[in-house]
Amino acid sequence: MFVARVYVTLKTGVNDPQGLTIKGGLQQLGFDTVEDVRAGKFFEIRINEESKGHASEAVGGMCEQLLANKVIEDYRFELQPVTG
Amino acid sequence: MFVARVYVTLKTGVNDPQGLTIKGGLQQLGFDTVEDVRAGKFFEIRINEESKGHASEAVGGMCEQLLANKVIEDYRFELQPVTG
Repeated sequence: MFVARVYVTLKTGVNDPQGLTIKGGLQQLGFDTVEDVRAGKFFEIRINEESKGHASEAVGGMCEQLLANKVIEDYRFELQPVTG
Repeated sequence: MFVARVYVTLKTGVNDPQGLTIKGGLQQLGFDTVEDVRAGKFFEIRINEESKGHASEAVGGMCEQLLANKVIEDYRFELQPVTG
């Protein structure tokens, strides 16, 4: 059993209206040292695979097929073995 | 200048309909070893502070006041110094 932590972020240069809105909100709250905010997604996936190789292959496939939009997003993930 | 990577996740026990939907989608795609999916948010924030202490204090404040809903979400962040 593994836990995959998947991070999906917008590619550099892709407009990020959500990030801009959050930046505006933070500055209005007085956090005037904020220079830039980029918003992304984070997934924690428990996967029942025996080997790290199989788990990595499966999670890579999930990112390619569902979790990330490869046109505008990048993804990365890390795997950690867990018991149970 | 620092970059803060902020991870906001639902607390254990809080319903996660987005995660359940993603889990269903992955299983329909044939990823039948998926046991559980939890969805969260990820922010990358560039902050113009001189010291790590000040940056940490500011980012903690941002999480408390805007980025996380403390009733149902947990947050954690890491800081990395950057140049420029």
